[in-house]
Amino acid sequence: MSYGKGWLAYHKIKTEKNDSRQISIQKLCSFLTVRAKGKIIDTAVEEYRTAAEQILGITVTVNERGSSVSKQPAVPGVIFELTEKAPDLKKDGFRIFFAENQLFLSANTESGLLYAVFELARRMMDGIYLPDLDITTNPAMNLRMINHWDNMDGSIERGYSGNSFFFKEGQILHSDRIHAYVRLMASIGINAIVINNVNVHERESYLITDKYLDSLKKYADVFAAYGIQLYICVNFAASIDIGSLPTADPLSGDVISWWQDTVRHIYDIVPELGGFVVKADSEGRPGPFTYGRTQADGANMLGRALKPYGGLLIWRCFVYNCGQDWRDRKTDRAKASYDYFKDLDGSFEENVILQIKNGPMDFQIREPVSPLFGGLKNTNSILEVQIAGEYTGQQKDVCYLVPMWKEILEFETYAFSDKDKSSTVRDIVSGNAFRNINCGMAGVTNTGNDYNWTGNDLAAVNLYGYGRLCFCPDMTAEQIAREWITMTLSSDSQVMNTVTNILMHSRSTYEKYTVPLGIGWMVTPHSHYGPDVDGYEYDKWGTYHRADRNGLGVDRTKKGTGFTAQYNEPNASMYNNMDTCPEELLLFFHRVRYDKVLKTGKTLIQHIYDTHFEGVEEVKNMRKEWAALENKIPEDVFRRVGERFEMQMQNAVEWRDRINTYFYRMSGAKDEKGRKIY
Amino acid sequence: MSYGKGWLAYHKIKTEKNDSRQISIQKLCSFLTVRAKGKIIDTAVEEYRTAAEQILGITVTVNERGSSVSKQPAVPGVIFELTEKAPDLKKDGFRIFFAENQLFLSANTESGLLYAVFELARRMMDGIYLPDLDITTNPAMNLRMINHWDNMDGSIERGYSGNSFFFKEGQILHSDRIHAYVRLMASIGINAIVINNVNVHERESYLITDKYLDSLKKYADVFAAYGIQLYICVNFAASIDIGSLPTADPLSGDVISWWQDTVRHIYDIVPELGGFVVKADSEGRPGPFTYGRTQADGANMLGRALKPYGGLLIWRCFVYNCGQDWRDRKTDRAKASYDYFKDLDGSFEENVILQIKNGPMDFQIREPVSPLFGGLKNTNSILEVQIAGEYTGQQKDVCYLVPMWKEILEFETYAFSDKDKSSTVRDIVSGNAFRNINCGMAGVTNTGNDYNWTGNDLAAVNLYGYGRLCFCPDMTAEQIAREWITMTLSSDSQVMNTVTNILMHSRSTYEKYTVPLGIGWMVTPHSHYGPDVDGYEYDKWGTYHRADRNGLGVDRTKKGTGFTAQYNEPNASMYNNMDTCPEELLLFFHRVRYDKVLKTGKTLIQHIYDTHFEGVEEVKNMRKEWAALENKIPEDVFRRVGERFEMQMQNAVEWRDRINTYFYRMSGAKDEKGRKIY
Repeated sequence: MSYGKGWLAYHKIKTEKNDSRQISIQKLCSFLTVRAKGKIIDTAVEEYRTAAEQILGITVTVNERGSSVSKQPAVPGVIFELTEKAPDLKKDGFRIFFAENQLFLSANTESGLLYAVFELARRMMDGIYLPDLDITTNPAMNLRMINHWDNMDGSIERGYSGNSFFFKEGQILHSDRIHAYVRLMASIGINAIVINNVNVHERESYLITDKYLDSLKKYADVFAAYGIQLYICVNFAASIDIGSLPTADPLSGDVISWWQDTVRHIYDIVPELGGFVVKADSEGRPGPFTYGRTQADGANMLGRALKPYGGLLIWRCFVYNCGQDWRDRKTDRAKASYDYFKDLDGSFEENVILQIKNGPMDFQIREPVSPLFGGLKNTNSILEVQIAGEYTGQQKDVCYLVPMWKEILEFETYAFSDKDKSSTVRDIVSGNAFRNINCGMAGVTNTGNDYNWTGNDLAAVNLYGYGRLCFCPDMTAEQIAREWITMTLSSDSQVMNTVTNILMHSRSTYEKYTVPLGIGWMVTPHSHYGPDVDGYEYDKWGTYHRADRNGLGVDRTKKGTGFTAQYNEPNASMYNNMDTCPEELLLFFHRVRYDKVLKTGKTLIQHIYDTHFEGVEEVKNMRKEWAALENKIPEDVFRRVGERFEMQMQNAVEWRDRINTYFYRMSGAKDEKGRKIY
Repeated sequence: MSYGKGWLAYHKIKTEKNDSRQISIQKLCSFLTVRAKGKIIDTAVEEYRTAAEQILGITVTVNERGSSVSKQPAVPGVIFELTEKAPDLKKDGFRIFFAENQLFLSANTESGLLYAVFELARRMMDGIYLPDLDITTNPAMNLRMINHWDNMDGSIERGYSGNSFFFKEGQILHSDRIHAYVRLMASIGINAIVINNVNVHERESYLITDKYLDSLKKYADVFAAYGIQLYICVNFAASIDIGSLPTADPLSGDVISWWQDTVRHIYDIVPELGGFVVKADSEGRPGPFTYGRTQADGANMLGRALKPYGGLLIWRCFVYNCGQDWRDRKTDRAKASYDYFKDLDGSFEENVILQIKNGPMDFQIREPVSPLFGGLKNTNSILEVQIAGEYTGQQKDVCYLVPMWKEILEFETYAFSDKDKSSTVRDIVSGNAFRNINCGMAGVTNTGNDYNWTGNDLAAVNLYGYGRLCFCPDMTAEQIAREWITMTLSSDSQVMNTVTNILMHSRSTYEKYTVPLGIGWMVTPHSHYGPDVDGYEYDKWGTYHRADRNGLGVDRTKKGTGFTAQYNEPNASMYNNMDTCPEELLLFFHRVRYDKVLKTGKTLIQHIYDTHFEGVEEVKNMRKEWAALENKIPEDVFRRVGERFEMQMQNAVEWRDRINTYFYRMSGAKDEKGRKIY
């Protein structure tokens, strides 16, 4: 299938405003001196040439490639250099600055230089006068990872943008599109990509066998040229399913040997491999619990097998009882990860990393931050977020997620007894809090083989923003949005303001017309799109709202399930008390009567009605604002996004009416404003 | 796959009690004189031989096959004769009687003789002294039809007994099992079998082409030897989908010609074909509405094409808006069939038959009878029931349906202005009311390629009972059950009493733990097994309960949707008035408050609680009663049914708890008996 270039669809910009300056940008950028060698440097040169030619309309001459002669050439130009001198530069960071008629791009790694080139391209697109630049940027996170939930049959679990571009009918695909994709990822700083679903089915179990290793090697090479490591998800029970062993017990000598041999063979063929990701003992996947072993036993066994090759073992913490009885009010799924992993803190190998979902449930539109982040102090961890909007509109409804991720990153966990010492999630996963190296973020991607990669063209901002946020969490959500709009749509001020406005309000709008105050779920079973208030209420997944004629919400205080106690103080007390609990999370932590008066002065039930009416009105407005952009942005994007707004409108109306009707039937409370509730 | 013999698993019985009589049964039955010729007569002789040999343990000598010599042979024996003299015999009826040392089986059709043989076998199994017999039986219905919802990929829509034994991977299967199945069907009087699903998908559309006609001819021959006509479901849009026409407009000359040519060709190859069944304009199937034509236009066009060959066209009345908006309280799915078909009364060809589901909705555990039966007076109709328990336990839960079908057959429609003239549904579909010939019953079967044919061994009684009821609606449900138990399990009195007891209570039990008082649905979407109170409440299917904190039920009175007015008086008034409406249908016709006091003196909510607790207790008792039959019935049946009772137990508990919890949350009413409601 054909595909667009996403945010790398550079176009020529006007540079008149530089005419009065001493140095012509065109002239400056036409001469490139490269004082380094390497495969990624070659990539950086090619990317520089592409950007300069397409954005500035010039032809680039590359001087003295790889040599380090005369330090100050006479003509103005651009210089790539690898340096270990710059004290402000960390691994993969870069500096861009102008000195003595030369624009320097400096880094201490090849990847750093490549990132500098993509940054320069963004500045070019923004029309910045390059000699004014002096920026030093270091990536905040060491691991900036993308998780694909692609299956080898070509389907994508929770994929809303077509099928996989990695796999089809059991085969690994090799096409131009892989290269185009890797460029996109490198341009936003991604350095690790897991190509297959964490649910490793039968066929995918064979990815670690000779059947596929040569193909993986090709991927690893394409990825490596852009500074990206290939990762794969493996089946914890592979020693049974593809080995000849009767067990997958991680303490069995045979199992240990089998994995050692298997990993050695994999690295013989694919030495670039970054490592494995494992979902074990979760939603039906096999794991160490089967053998009475701990999660650490399982993770460490695999970690040790990977260690000789520098490989990482990433172990997901999404472990909970998915066979819960809805009648059981003591078991609380929200508590599961903490309960399973907290006591194992400090018992994991250095190359083992726990991958923790942002919230204690599962990627809802509003959840508190997982208390496990503030609980683990001697364990490497990764923050997992979902770029694919499984519960946040599925790339039909626009829902810009960067503001949510920023909230999560800035959440103070109070992990230190000295409460003045910062231990935000960002501090933890960037290694600042506990000095970890093996940490960072993982994003479950929203890509597929649709022409525009992400179903809704506007959903690309989540993918773009995810990468930018991993690299530069200091950027505001709005800065990221504006950067993406410039790169993708237009820098026209009406476009910029309209789209920024739509994006910045989109999460709040989505939240308004869907589930109220952090209660979550209420979605159609299986598909997870559209409303079904009781859809999971009597099911086995631990996802209950417990609404009755008097009120709703789950009591997770100390008098309830006790979940609040998993937080460090003062968070524990804050959540435990209905008066101090942030209102947007009220129903997550508390059981609340419909007639409870909220801080707004409205009753809970009136809040539910009002937000649902408002949400629909806001979608109407968004749709209208978008319609006004005709002829200001590419026609195909205008049309596709317009179609998505129609879908969103339908979805919002359905949510409004079903939620309002459900709670009207339950509560009997009339809408104060007398609006139509069915 | 292997298969059992069902109720034709004859076994040798003891005949000691006949020893004192003058004529030995063994001796009498050893000599058979056949005074008729024909393929079905040959079948009858073989079936007689099989029955006599297996039940009585004798070897049968067949005398003078086909000749009609000496009318009174000297030795005692059995005589088959075709006669037109007996005034009490109607088409396919038979008489069995003893005269002058001879046991006569007389009929005026070959099929009648075959049915007499199977009747004789039942009497043998029951240990009856045959010379005491003098019975005349005429089938009450002319069409005694089985509908298979088998797809050519081998799946069965709403099949709970394995896959199809007719189709696999697009091919028509020919195996011994087809013959075994046809025997079973003939033994209970079935004379028409539709082999494919009424939802005719792409592949099945080609059944009427040369690709499959030779295979159909083989089926037709196997069926014909047992007096059964083969029917197929066709795609109304076949002129487009497999023809070369741009339309399926039933008034288009091209379409009419296409069907005439197609039908002629089919009958050239398969002259035995009974005709077509069509589901049109229903749940996404194409139909005459597409072209602005009536249902009669569509049906008559096909009927005329079939007429020259004696074929029948059976047109389903399951036409309703399946894209309803749950917000819309005016549209009432219950009204649809009547609204679409009532005014067409008298406009159908003589060989066109309307197939009407028993209730106005869709095979729920409790529905009123479709008012269309009392509305059509000049139209052939068939009563459609579902043997497969889509909404009645899916052959996991035991649910004997004959009592329900008897209620439906005995329902007085008051179709005549002379209210003393009987116009029960039975009168209508047996032709007594309006002198129709082309009428009868159709049962959506519950068979598949499971060893025991019907998933639950006890579910076979529904298939057996369906056939027996079509033939002999005078039989009570208990008589039918006892007959089946004798044929299948044992005539031991404990077995007889226990199983009869289980079967006779099973529908009431199922109703108790599932949906209350005729409201219907509340099932898991798609699968239709297990509870989900709101599962279809906000969906497009027109299946709503409208429960809120005060009450539930749909007002279908004249003040509500007006459905009650579709009945003739005095039914219309009876249903319209909450006080005279039969209580088991209360919520189907009325919206009722939880605190309404029912005739039992209980409130509605207490009735809901009580019946749900009772239902579970009754399942427990059934399970216990069944367990006491160990060693009294075949071990494999004992084990399989025992497993089904475990499933039923789980299902009943889940229904009890979810229904009770849902209505407790809604109503806030405490259980008077203080039992656990979650």
